[in-house]
Amino acid sequence: MKPIKIGLIGLGTVGGGVVEILKAHHDDIVRHAGVDLQLVRAADTNEARFAQLGLGPDVATTDGFAVIADPEVDVVVELVGGTGIAHKMVIEALKAGKSVVTANKALLATHGEEIFALADARGLDIRFEAAVGGGIPILGPLTHSTTANEFSRVLGIVNGTTNYMLTRMTEAGLDFDTALKEAQDLGYAEADPTADVDGYDAAAKIAILASMVFNSRVTLNDVPTQGIRELAPADIAYAAEIGYTVKLLALANKTDSGIDIRVHPTMIPAKHQLASVDGVYNAIYLTGDFVGDLMFFGEGAGAGAAASAVVGDIVEAARTLGGGTDAIGCTCTDNLPIRALDDLVCRYYFRLIVADRAGVIAAVARVLADHRVSMQSLIQRGTTADGMAEVVYVTHAAREGDIQAALAEIRELDVVSSVASLIRVEDLA
Amino acid sequence: MKPIKIGLIGLGTVGGGVVEILKAHHDDIVRHAGVDLQLVRAADTNEARFAQLGLGPDVATTDGFAVIADPEVDVVVELVGGTGIAHKMVIEALKAGKSVVTANKALLATHGEEIFALADARGLDIRFEAAVGGGIPILGPLTHSTTANEFSRVLGIVNGTTNYMLTRMTEAGLDFDTALKEAQDLGYAEADPTADVDGYDAAAKIAILASMVFNSRVTLNDVPTQGIRELAPADIAYAAEIGYTVKLLALANKTDSGIDIRVHPTMIPAKHQLASVDGVYNAIYLTGDFVGDLMFFGEGAGAGAAASAVVGDIVEAARTLGGGTDAIGCTCTDNLPIRALDDLVCRYYFRLIVADRAGVIAAVARVLADHRVSMQSLIQRGTTADGMAEVVYVTHAAREGDIQAALAEIRELDVVSSVASLIRVEDLA
Repeated sequence: MKPIKIGLIGLGTVGGGVVEILKAHHDDIVRHAGVDLQLVRAADTNEARFAQLGLGPDVATTDGFAVIADPEVDVVVELVGGTGIAHKMVIEALKAGKSVVTANKALLATHGEEIFALADARGLDIRFEAAVGGGIPILGPLTHSTTANEFSRVLGIVNGTTNYMLTRMTEAGLDFDTALKEAQDLGYAEADPTADVDGYDAAAKIAILASMVFNSRVTLNDVPTQGIRELAPADIAYAAEIGYTVKLLALANKTDSGIDIRVHPTMIPAKHQLASVDGVYNAIYLTGDFVGDLMFFGEGAGAGAAASAVVGDIVEAARTLGGGTDAIGCTCTDNLPIRALDDLVCRYYFRLIVADRAGVIAAVARVLADHRVSMQSLIQRGTTADGMAEVVYVTHAAREGDIQAALAEIRELDVVSSVASLIRVEDLA
Repeated sequence: MKPIKIGLIGLGTVGGGVVEILKAHHDDIVRHAGVDLQLVRAADTNEARFAQLGLGPDVATTDGFAVIADPEVDVVVELVGGTGIAHKMVIEALKAGKSVVTANKALLATHGEEIFALADARGLDIRFEAAVGGGIPILGPLTHSTTANEFSRVLGIVNGTTNYMLTRMTEAGLDFDTALKEAQDLGYAEADPTADVDGYDAAAKIAILASMVFNSRVTLNDVPTQGIRELAPADIAYAAEIGYTVKLLALANKTDSGIDIRVHPTMIPAKHQLASVDGVYNAIYLTGDFVGDLMFFGEGAGAGAAASAVVGDIVEAARTLGGGTDAIGCTCTDNLPIRALDDLVCRYYFRLIVADRAGVIAAVARVLADHRVSMQSLIQRGTTADGMAEVVYVTHAAREGDIQAALAEIRELDVVSSVASLIRVEDLA
């Protein structure tokens, strides 16, 4: 059996996990998958990691490009992250004729077209299972077991940090700041939590997923994105009262007018399978015309889970080098338009802080009617110390453009102090 | 692009679904997967199906062996079922040098060793995704994305008929007979429901799953199997009272003393992800050393879902013929022993019907203590019209052999009318 030589760039938590798996399971992988994987070069700018991971001077280097240039290396594993030097490395590795495995969602959601085209032109493998669902196998099943289907939607909980925070906000009534502090203390959120809490991580993942599922190019810039910073415990409590759970959903639907794609806090029925996906777990839910509904659940982050997906990709890339079938990246030949968010039609929940006096409900109702928004239910709660009242609305299906225009007007009403929240409601039927 | 010619044997609901997908998505599959699938022969003993499916005399035949013998056919799809003629057909197809796709769980759980060895010796593909989870991709992910892991367990709800019945027994308090009648009326259960309600279907599936997950041969005969016929609504209600849900679980654990494998009604925590898998849905749950917990959820049966998995396999077999990597069936090289059920250690729930008089609890407690079974909790309910009382026990972890011996003695006590039920409790931590 000819050994397949691996060059690894980036020895952070995921890279460390990859080194560990290649050591712990080398013989199992030979036995079960029929490939002999050998880590021949490994790069990181932090030299301290070499000793921690037991990598000698023959393997370790501080220069990632030296890994790519090494003629021995068959498969380059990029775990640097970001769209800067990682972009150069992936392009250079493909140009050098190496198969590439990466976990870099931002890179693929931004430069996917260039990277896939180059890999395709050179007949090289580019694999990226860890970029979407951490350890959850999703791209593999999509390009293998479920190829017989046309999918109408893909959605999911694809960010563990925010799902942990939302779970705590729901179960313990924590506010955003307290939940974030707790997630940071536990190592589930980074010091700068922007990519997670503002939804960009989820947006990159749904861009990649939608590209694969609908076979049409979707990039990060195509995804209207709203995070969970403005979610109040009050909204989560109201949701529970009416049978809903609030999750940060990444959604993509194939509609007659194009791909509807977005990331935002969403009220979903408390009984839906996705509603019980709690803590740092992630889940991806799909609907195909023959297979029906599918859900893939698991750890969306964490060193072990992501490393598992990376090594799965390395195994496949190695089998391909031994004469197997190339990975199908995204052929993306269907060229579907991206639908404007204004054209979304769904139900909406919103909460107003209003003056507690006669005529408020009527004034708001008039504006809604003017914008063709029809109300399904309304909850009004008692007056607060400052003479204000809280009113919660749930609408029937309405157009996003209409609801936004209506709320802009409602915000200007004398009797309205503020629009405290707006959350989209998805029944996921 | 060289067309890949498909021969299909068996035009029942799944076979009909396959014909439909090959028609509906032929062009999509060319575009997305790069293979041109052509159905050139199709066999069924029921000639009425040919017209229903639009199959002309050039394609249709009543002789399955004619499909196998046709030199044009590259891939044989066996959807006949059972271990009789289907066994002969699969062997003959492999001997004729054809790749084989099948959904036949009973066949693989019984004759897997012979079939995999023959396919391996001839360098041919044998694929069987639909045999385990219906439409749920599970064998694909196991042999691809998650190959980096050593799995310690695989378990799941793998029979839609019984899961539908249990859901109705739980939600509406139906008894077994009423739930079965309802399932039959809805087409979810067959006229002879034995394979489903007595657990044999689930046993075949867990035998295949355990073989793949632990890389060691497990056959149908290795699986102690108990169905749901004796489950009473009372037990389901008691389970709910103590925070559990009753599911027909198929489980396999890798232990130091071999593979622990079994199918039986099981109390699982109501908050576990598997507990909310309701109706005809199925789910398979795995724990790997790096990836952690994974769950795959979807439709376990139904024409569309199973046909989706079959066509996924056909696509892979076709790609392999074009120069791809062979499917890894089960190399099954690890030769782990199967652990005797008597050596199982878990918690047990059981319900006794006893005489309502002094000394009963003490007498039962003495027998349990004699057999090293220690009690965790006990619920006693009021006397019935005939002077009997019902007592429900939950034990601490005990050995199966001990609990069975204890119950045999308890059954003989003067004060005990009957052991109404015994259900294993799994906390799935």
